[in-house]
Amino acid sequence: MSKLIQPKVLKGFRDFLPETEIARKEIQETLEDTFKSFGMVPIDTPTLEYTEVLLGKGGGETDKQIYRFNDLGGRDVAMRFDLTVPFARFMAAHRNDLYLPFKRYHISKVWRGENTQRGRYREFTQCDFDIVGLDSPEADFEILSVMHASLTALGIEKIHIHLSHRGIFNRFLEKLEIMEKSAEILRIVDKLAKIGEDNVIKQLKELTSSKNAALILEYINAAGSFKEILSKIEELSGGPSAESERLRIVRGMMKECGIEDLFILNPSITRGLDYYTGIVYETFLDDLPGIGSVCSGGRYNNLASIYSKEEMPGVGSSIGLDRLMAALEELGVSAPRNSLTDVLILNMDEKLKGHYFNIASILRKEGLNCEVYLETKKMKNQFNFAERKNIPAAIICGEDEYKENKINLKDLSARENYNMITIDEASEKIKTMLGRAII
Amino acid sequence: MSKLIQPKVLKGFRDFLPETEIARKEIQETLEDTFKSFGMVPIDTPTLEYTEVLLGKGGGETDKQIYRFNDLGGRDVAMRFDLTVPFARFMAAHRNDLYLPFKRYHISKVWRGENTQRGRYREFTQCDFDIVGLDSPEADFEILSVMHASLTALGIEKIHIHLSHRGIFNRFLEKLEIMEKSAEILRIVDKLAKIGEDNVIKQLKELTSSKNAALILEYINAAGSFKEILSKIEELSGGPSAESERLRIVRGMMKECGIEDLFILNPSITRGLDYYTGIVYETFLDDLPGIGSVCSGGRYNNLASIYSKEEMPGVGSSIGLDRLMAALEELGVSAPRNSLTDVLILNMDEKLKGHYFNIASILRKEGLNCEVYLETKKMKNQFNFAERKNIPAAIICGEDEYKENKINLKDLSARENYNMITIDEASEKIKTMLGRAII
Repeated sequence: MSKLIQPKVLKGFRDFLPETEIARKEIQETLEDTFKSFGMVPIDTPTLEYTEVLLGKGGGETDKQIYRFNDLGGRDVAMRFDLTVPFARFMAAHRNDLYLPFKRYHISKVWRGENTQRGRYREFTQCDFDIVGLDSPEADFEILSVMHASLTALGIEKIHIHLSHRGIFNRFLEKLEIMEKSAEILRIVDKLAKIGEDNVIKQLKELTSSKNAALILEYINAAGSFKEILSKIEELSGGPSAESERLRIVRGMMKECGIEDLFILNPSITRGLDYYTGIVYETFLDDLPGIGSVCSGGRYNNLASIYSKEEMPGVGSSIGLDRLMAALEELGVSAPRNSLTDVLILNMDEKLKGHYFNIASILRKEGLNCEVYLETKKMKNQFNFAERKNIPAAIICGEDEYKENKINLKDLSARENYNMITIDEASEKIKTMLGRAII
Repeated sequence: MSKLIQPKVLKGFRDFLPETEIARKEIQETLEDTFKSFGMVPIDTPTLEYTEVLLGKGGGETDKQIYRFNDLGGRDVAMRFDLTVPFARFMAAHRNDLYLPFKRYHISKVWRGENTQRGRYREFTQCDFDIVGLDSPEADFEILSVMHASLTALGIEKIHIHLSHRGIFNRFLEKLEIMEKSAEILRIVDKLAKIGEDNVIKQLKELTSSKNAALILEYINAAGSFKEILSKIEELSGGPSAESERLRIVRGMMKECGIEDLFILNPSITRGLDYYTGIVYETFLDDLPGIGSVCSGGRYNNLASIYSKEEMPGVGSSIGLDRLMAALEELGVSAPRNSLTDVLILNMDEKLKGHYFNIASILRKEGLNCEVYLETKKMKNQFNFAERKNIPAAIICGEDEYKENKINLKDLSARENYNMITIDEASEKIKTMLGRAII
């Protein structure tokens, strides 16, 4: 016999056992149902792309983290590291096959060879949704509504979405005549929560001046009601503008829909990246503020500029599914399950093997998940199996029951028996049991 | 402005536009619902693994097709080329965390740098389901039942599953005293449909003898009823055995469940690979025999032998999702849709923006997929949008309707109007419309 190979997985990668994969799939299904209810459609793109297509002009952190190699045909290829770049490439390639505004969602894995010490994975799932081809307050509001509806559907009610507007911030920087330093300023302001106010002031002073640093702090720390903060940043940025008017319209729609209390105007939200031009936002869970934003995004004015001359304005948001799963578990919203089986049909009698599958087939038509124990074994073993898989009901059918075309049903959690009933009666009883378990 | 990058995808890879991705997701959901109804649970494994783990002792076709490279840490890694090898590794690694028999399904992408000329993709989706940790006729029958139930759920009723038993064939080869050549014989017999009977005889003659070649042909060409063929191969392999008895028991269960006509005992089915030891099968669509088997598999006696000393017998099957999708489209079972939206709410009046989202929100709670047109535009543009997306209903609400808390509903396919009705009434009418469309 040859030497065994150790069944190890790569650092930063992991297997999904049934408990985790069942939970992950249910979260994904809930999110997809929500996206579809807003008229969004799914797309998918290749895992591997030309490196040039993914990295564009290149440079920056991403290059150092990307899984890149030469394929069998000698092409320089790489695994996607996010869903935004492939989406931009997708829009440039298929613009003429799509109706605009195009509302898509995309849930897929991405890969980054990151440092795994911070509890990060090198293979993780992203969930992006965007509306492309339109710059309107309705589109801005819709993405915010999808974010709210998604988290509500997952059972997370206590959230706040912090939002701001990059266009107003840019007007403010222009007024201070430091717009050319906007990328660095954004990067510093974005670190506020991480490095603290003193360090932000220090770094801004070094970059611009004491006076400008103080004004930037005044801007990002503006406090009060939504209305008051908006007036304040409007004033600091040189008065009313199309950008501040946009925020007012979106705020009006929030009020009309009765969800205005979920939103906090927070001028310190900037979303580091150069990419954004309009409204930007991050979402925090009231009960788990420490985990950071679970859903972030904003408006950009040109998605596919590196591939196409056509301007494609859009607005979108991204959910980190792995972080969200951890949050749901920590909040106790989802209890892990290792099985989805509703009823186990015991295998009691060699001669009745086929009949057991018949019973299962009838119950499946009633929408019940059921399995036949797959060999004739002691009752004890079969009940142990049901217990380990948390199966709530068992059906027992011996020769006596078979002759009468009846079965015995056991409610395994309530420990009650219903003997000599028909399969239809059993089906109704199991459905009642499951309803009870849900309530 | 810098030079544009061409938004091209790699050869053998492809984007999934909404039409295709909606169809793919629906097929996957139907399959998953079927698997779950049999008590199967999902798992997932990493896309990248140590090359040594994936290739084992290596050698063969796979090595030449695998996407293999050194990662940023210098590890020799590769992208998975099937779901069987990762599953074997998974079982060896997690054996103690799982209840046996373990019934899992796994639907994921795999990658092979194959020749793309035969219309093959280098990135494609596999769908595997297995029962591991048990060697019983019930388990054999259950996998066959899952195959049948899966295709039925997808709307494909006219199928035949051709099956055979590798154990009986092995007994036959032992009787002829040519068991040591079984791997080559299997490879030749497996090519019967491709290279024709004459070539098979020729190659078998060269490998063994004229007499043996004739006997092998007699074996694989055995004709008649299931019972007759079974008697024939039983006789050729030296009489009744545990293996032929297994086939009889499975046949009994098919009869008990009234699905025996779906199954054809076909001794020419061998499934080339060394790996199989028991029952083996392939599934053909009556209306599309030319596309080959859409679902194949069999019983093996040791899944994880390269990673673990523990024997893990199992039985499983695999669906090629891309081939199946093509078949469903060709059979006209699935009509491509570019949208899942049930109703469009027209955007008529700047002042009513928020109200439109309110209407949408109420309809979503009724389970309808709906979208607000995301800017105030001419009616004509908005109706065009509905038409391009095949949205069956539209809601119109101007100031008059708003004041009365009413709306106008348009059935866009039947071209009927329902004016000044409540949102609840509209919701009921739309549901009726959709029901009508389905029937």
